[in-house]
Amino acid sequence: MRGAAIGVIKASKSDAFPIGSYATGTVGWTELAIVNGKHLEKVEIPKNGQITDALGVLGMTGLTAYFGLLEVGKIKAGDFLVVSGAAGATGSVVGQIAKLKGATVLGIAGSDHKVRWLKDELGFDDALNYKDHDFARKFKEATKDLIDVFFDNVGGEVLDLALSRAKPHARFVICGAISQYNSSKPQGPKNYLNIISMRIRMEGFIVFDYVEQYLEACRQLAQWLAEGKIQRKETVVKGGLAKAEQALVDLYNGINTGESLPRNEMRRTEC
Amino acid sequence: MRGAAIGVIKASKSDAFPIGSYATGTVGWTELAIVNGKHLEKVEIPKNGQITDALGVLGMTGLTAYFGLLEVGKIKAGDFLVVSGAAGATGSVVGQIAKLKGATVLGIAGSDHKVRWLKDELGFDDALNYKDHDFARKFKEATKDLIDVFFDNVGGEVLDLALSRAKPHARFVICGAISQYNSSKPQGPKNYLNIISMRIRMEGFIVFDYVEQYLEACRQLAQWLAEGKIQRKETVVKGGLAKAEQALVDLYNGINTGESLPRNEMRRTEC
Repeated sequence: MRGAAIGVIKASKSDAFPIGSYATGTVGWTELAIVNGKHLEKVEIPKNGQITDALGVLGMTGLTAYFGLLEVGKIKAGDFLVVSGAAGATGSVVGQIAKLKGATVLGIAGSDHKVRWLKDELGFDDALNYKDHDFARKFKEATKDLIDVFFDNVGGEVLDLALSRAKPHARFVICGAISQYNSSKPQGPKNYLNIISMRIRMEGFIVFDYVEQYLEACRQLAQWLAEGKIQRKETVVKGGLAKAEQALVDLYNGINTGESLPRNEMRRTEC
Repeated sequence: MRGAAIGVIKASKSDAFPIGSYATGTVGWTELAIVNGKHLEKVEIPKNGQITDALGVLGMTGLTAYFGLLEVGKIKAGDFLVVSGAAGATGSVVGQIAKLKGATVLGIAGSDHKVRWLKDELGFDDALNYKDHDFARKFKEATKDLIDVFFDNVGGEVLDLALSRAKPHARFVICGAISQYNSSKPQGPKNYLNIISMRIRMEGFIVFDYVEQYLEACRQLAQWLAEGKIQRKETVVKGGLAKAEQALVDLYNGINTGESLPRNEMRRTEC
């Protein structure tokens, strides 16, 4: 299974990767791997952080939040941002960066527990549980000022609701559509005609397009982390790779909060 | 019925609008109207043109083509443009401006007659009839180089096909969706996840947002018209306003080519 991982160096022919140091790379889901050093990057424990941040806030999910919100969404002070999948690894960082930039933030998540975390710990202005039977009415009420930027990780009905509450010239950042990935009959946004009437810019992106800016973005994210301005939560699944399959299923079922990381308790994740 | 019209001045209290001169305004579908001069604009016959061009190439439909293609689509030399509703009042101007800017143009229209007009008279590089039983295969073949700019007047299946043939960072100008306007169950673009994988910018617009640039755009369009660089066709429905209702129904059924203009043969259209 393809995937990024962090591991500890157990044997090395490279001075750049001494035994006992940490490295990250797209080595896949594996307990041991023999990897050419040019496909790895060194990882150090960030200030006020932990080694796994290299797969979260300081990894692909954090960078996805950073570039999607700043480069595609062009967030600015005073904007009203709505983010779906708000308690996920990317969504939770999106909302916090938006707050740092002076925006008002509404998060959409899948449990009351997640909603409380977003409001009480991450400082979101508001958050809603989309599984609430009264969600559509509450969403309408919470977006009475209409949306400047919608950062979408979910697609489906939440995207349609957001389209119906867009301000003229709103920016819709299409980052993911977890509600649609495993659907046998993907559902396009029925309200897409609002793209015309509200002059919406709906734009997709892939984090790899910004590779030349990774270093600068990582430095900024690491600084916010060190200053305690970005909080994050990891869902650690104990029991090693044997539990990874179920962890993926749980992710699609919305069990996790923040980054999902299967961890090999016996030997940590090694590569 | 609200609508723009051109008429001849039959009586006037304004020096700006002498009797016998032409004027245009949103006066509605009417044979006679009493209108305050501040809601009218003078119309003159353009060089190499005719009085009704003020409702077509030099009116809203031409301006919609101009701003949508240049300001939203950001067309440039070497781009591959696909335009739907290509034989319509806006689509036909879109394709011709794109050719003037050095793009390669594929038009999608609803009859073999329209396809021939686009290729033989307007100079489109290629054109396809979406009612052709083999349209999907032909579309795929005609877009083998993938699409830089898609200018959409139609929505529905044609938009989905275009999404499946987009080049990375393609621009999708959402101008209209005539296939969806009268649908009881509007259909969103099923292939919208390509917005992510292909980093597509899908953007809507309304011509009124560009009102401050109208004069400049009209001058450019009038110059192209005078130089014979823009061709256009009107579908004139004889029999006056009594026939206007049927003309609107015909428009939704794709009967017309270019701008649809009900004309009062007895007294021309008067306001």
